[in-house]
Amino acid sequence: MRLITEIAAETGIGEEHLELYGKYKAKLAPSLWQELKDRPNGKLVLVTAVNPTPAGEGKTLTTIGLAQAMNKAGVKTVAALREPSLGPCLGMKGGATGSGKAQIVPADDINLHFTGDIHAVTSAHNLLSAMIDNHIFQGNELNLDPQRIVWKRVLDMNDRSLRNIVTGLGDGNGVVRESGFQITTASEIMAVLCLCSDLSDLKARLGRMLVGYDREGKPVTADRLNAVEAMSALLKEAVKPNLVQTLEGTPVIVHGGPFANIAHGCSSVIGTRYALKLGEVVVTEAGFGADLGAEKFMDIKCRQAGLAPSAAVLVVTVKALKYNGGIPKGELYAPNRAALLAGLANMERHIENLRKFGVPVLVALNHFEGDSEAEVQAIIDACRRLGVSAAISKAWAEGGAGGLELAEELKKLLDRESAAEFAPLYEDQLDIPSKIGKIVKEIYRGAEVAFSPAAKRSLALIERLGLGELQVCMAKTPYSFSDQPRLLGAPEGFTVQVRDITLSLGAGFAVVITGSIVTMPGLPVKPAAEELRIDEDGVLTGLA
Amino acid sequence: MRLITEIAAETGIGEEHLELYGKYKAKLAPSLWQELKDRPNGKLVLVTAVNPTPAGEGKTLTTIGLAQAMNKAGVKTVAALREPSLGPCLGMKGGATGSGKAQIVPADDINLHFTGDIHAVTSAHNLLSAMIDNHIFQGNELNLDPQRIVWKRVLDMNDRSLRNIVTGLGDGNGVVRESGFQITTASEIMAVLCLCSDLSDLKARLGRMLVGYDREGKPVTADRLNAVEAMSALLKEAVKPNLVQTLEGTPVIVHGGPFANIAHGCSSVIGTRYALKLGEVVVTEAGFGADLGAEKFMDIKCRQAGLAPSAAVLVVTVKALKYNGGIPKGELYAPNRAALLAGLANMERHIENLRKFGVPVLVALNHFEGDSEAEVQAIIDACRRLGVSAAISKAWAEGGAGGLELAEELKKLLDRESAAEFAPLYEDQLDIPSKIGKIVKEIYRGAEVAFSPAAKRSLALIERLGLGELQVCMAKTPYSFSDQPRLLGAPEGFTVQVRDITLSLGAGFAVVITGSIVTMPGLPVKPAAEELRIDEDGVLTGLA
Repeated sequence: MRLITEIAAETGIGEEHLELYGKYKAKLAPSLWQELKDRPNGKLVLVTAVNPTPAGEGKTLTTIGLAQAMNKAGVKTVAALREPSLGPCLGMKGGATGSGKAQIVPADDINLHFTGDIHAVTSAHNLLSAMIDNHIFQGNELNLDPQRIVWKRVLDMNDRSLRNIVTGLGDGNGVVRESGFQITTASEIMAVLCLCSDLSDLKARLGRMLVGYDREGKPVTADRLNAVEAMSALLKEAVKPNLVQTLEGTPVIVHGGPFANIAHGCSSVIGTRYALKLGEVVVTEAGFGADLGAEKFMDIKCRQAGLAPSAAVLVVTVKALKYNGGIPKGELYAPNRAALLAGLANMERHIENLRKFGVPVLVALNHFEGDSEAEVQAIIDACRRLGVSAAISKAWAEGGAGGLELAEELKKLLDRESAAEFAPLYEDQLDIPSKIGKIVKEIYRGAEVAFSPAAKRSLALIERLGLGELQVCMAKTPYSFSDQPRLLGAPEGFTVQVRDITLSLGAGFAVVITGSIVTMPGLPVKPAAEELRIDEDGVLTGLA
Repeated sequence: MRLITEIAAETGIGEEHLELYGKYKAKLAPSLWQELKDRPNGKLVLVTAVNPTPAGEGKTLTTIGLAQAMNKAGVKTVAALREPSLGPCLGMKGGATGSGKAQIVPADDINLHFTGDIHAVTSAHNLLSAMIDNHIFQGNELNLDPQRIVWKRVLDMNDRSLRNIVTGLGDGNGVVRESGFQITTASEIMAVLCLCSDLSDLKARLGRMLVGYDREGKPVTADRLNAVEAMSALLKEAVKPNLVQTLEGTPVIVHGGPFANIAHGCSSVIGTRYALKLGEVVVTEAGFGADLGAEKFMDIKCRQAGLAPSAAVLVVTVKALKYNGGIPKGELYAPNRAALLAGLANMERHIENLRKFGVPVLVALNHFEGDSEAEVQAIIDACRRLGVSAAISKAWAEGGAGGLELAEELKKLLDRESAAEFAPLYEDQLDIPSKIGKIVKEIYRGAEVAFSPAAKRSLALIERLGLGELQVCMAKTPYSFSDQPRLLGAPEGFTVQVRDITLSLGAGFAVVITGSIVTMPGLPVKPAAEELRIDEDGVLTGLA
């Protein structure tokens, strides 16, 4: 691992613009932006994937490997990634910093507290929660309806027992009411942090967040609780992007990490903007598969920030396609050409979808030991038939060297003149049902959208509040194009059931809830935390 | 504000031992300890106070001012302070970094997230909480009794609504049971962090913490939940002391901040040990007045860490003594010699008490504008009569220069040969009721101790568990020597009611609960958070 000051210097960042967190992590000071802001932007490349499967597709790994490979191929490339959330790291998932020879480091520090950004979001969120309950307790001047507080509490921990709780029990302990905790990455403040353009925009967005309704049914926003300045103060360091490096010394901006279902699932706009000034190419990722992650990246993040991606890389694996071809988890290791060919329909549809945004597509076949040559070749052949570039990536085993073929394909794609003519899927002025309809029909390929009575009431309220032009953030199972997790491959003709629509007014979108979305994960029988070890020198094993 | 690297260099700390957090904060790496450990220790001075009053005594301010003054007087002095807790900063209290010309800086950063230590305690604590509930949910192999889980959850926020809650509601969301949140500084992990000598000791202590009882009534400790390694990993940076500076560039180690009622209320042992190797003199403080703070400093911290204080500084103010003389809060500004003379009994008793630990005492009269000369003189005269050194401190108005007289008195005290012959108040081998009795009779001057039925049951359990030799940590109102907040001055003949005795086995003490102890504060009508402002450059006002 090299000193972060050296990595910064090579990236063109003077030491005076670094706020060091130890020797290997740094925040980028706002003074750097003053120096960078008039430079031309590099080219933005989104790494996305087919629908996720239990086998793991390696999207983060491929993003890191591709950034390493691009640098090896002579293109100054910066990666822009999300911050891992502590809860899942200690729960089901282990670390989230890549793996093999495509990792960001110091992995353990990044996986645990990193530079404290997520803790700052937790504090800001829970300050508002405490001020809401205190407001009611101290006389409730705003006439808040305790039964209609929509602002919950958050912790960065997987703790199912906190999903639904009753608070305020006992004499003098506030007002008894139902509430609950979400994981911090599900906080609207995380989405706000990731979409804001600076501290002033952060403040404005925090003020617009909906906390609940008063007894007359009128919405009450956070600015009414006098908490916005204090929340912004708690977030003043968290809005600054973090610089770390890959195992090969590639600069990586790791900043923000909102949920990919009830939020948009992309790293921060601020971090992406810095990266675009620092690299000729910026490689970034979005949550889940392209039906959710890429759609929101394009329709929410890029639209709000005025960004235009130049290419999309679609990560596929032999196992993911076989799984989408109907093979159960336990049998994915055996070659099965028929299942693979059936599963290609999933890849094909994602490619078609990505092209709808006017962005050229490159398929990255993330190679695993044990992939049969015939299966690999079948994927490459399919891409050729579809007229889409494709390359094998062996970033896990070989790091940047294993991604050189992919890097060369990406360079070709980016060099082609006017390859990308980016446009979001839907127009701002469409009403919310039409926006949902467009996503369901053009991306998911469902036949219809059905709105529950609750969703219809929410739509009527949104209309009444004059918020009909909000963007939409789809909260849907990631495992299927549809809202039914077991409908794999490339289903059609289904109806998407909209259960409810909630408002993230600070983030600027209406969250469209389909299926049951868990915003507070639980721990499994054997949590990842049990595998962690630390020796007397403070060296960890078992996490990343 | 000077660069922390400069302050470190002047203190004899090479840059290679610093882990920077921005330009003005640093953690001290364990490598420094290797270099320091064989050096002789400096002299340890405890700053404590008369019973706290609504007027504020300025203990932290005086500690900082004294450290500044000692350096001005040519004695290389390091201060060792507690970390402010975010909850109270945003609640009732505002910042906790001193004030006027005796402050530690960067005050806003120290008051908010600082270097993340308290957040790390929150994470480690709540990981154990989640693993307990998950253990029960996944089959409860340890046969834990859900009604007898003593391990709660924590947040660093003032939020009364979380004091008593019901968790686990709803299908698949765990086991329904009563629980609650404490503020993070009340976590036993904070006490453990502050008492441990290194990472190995931390781990051992975390493993001993009591989480609850099984259905056969047997205690279950944290090591049974397989969470100790992960908790230690989460705390691996938090165990490293933090270096900052005062407004005059005096080095200050700010590390740890446990509650002063259910815990011992002192900054970390590790931080104190580093400071003792770096300064000829180390000035440190303990929570609340001397009846709680100094007693626990001597009987818990010094005993466990093998430290021997060379002197105690007792902070008094004209207003605090008048308040203890029976004058209500609103009338403290008017001179009132009779009330002052009555209140001197409080000071006198604290002096007597401190001497029982074999430590010479120096009275620091923290001077406020508006103190009448006659009142000031009356205090100085009283000290003379008692044969105790005393000096006026004007650290708020004048910084170190205003504490020079106090510094000279302290130097004299420390120069006197064999001035201190420190011994804790009670012997390790006394049983718990005898230890409590000794504190109540010799420090509080109560006539008797009454144990509630619950306390008697707890005592019997402690005896049965073979834990009779634990130290005791008194949880009592700070406002009176007695357990009745309104019994000011120097009361006698009262009975202390012990409601319950709980176990902090990782910290190594039994917590003796008298009165009702609130471990989760609430927000006032107008929280301090509402006064906070942040401008577009990220500069804060209204906090410190």
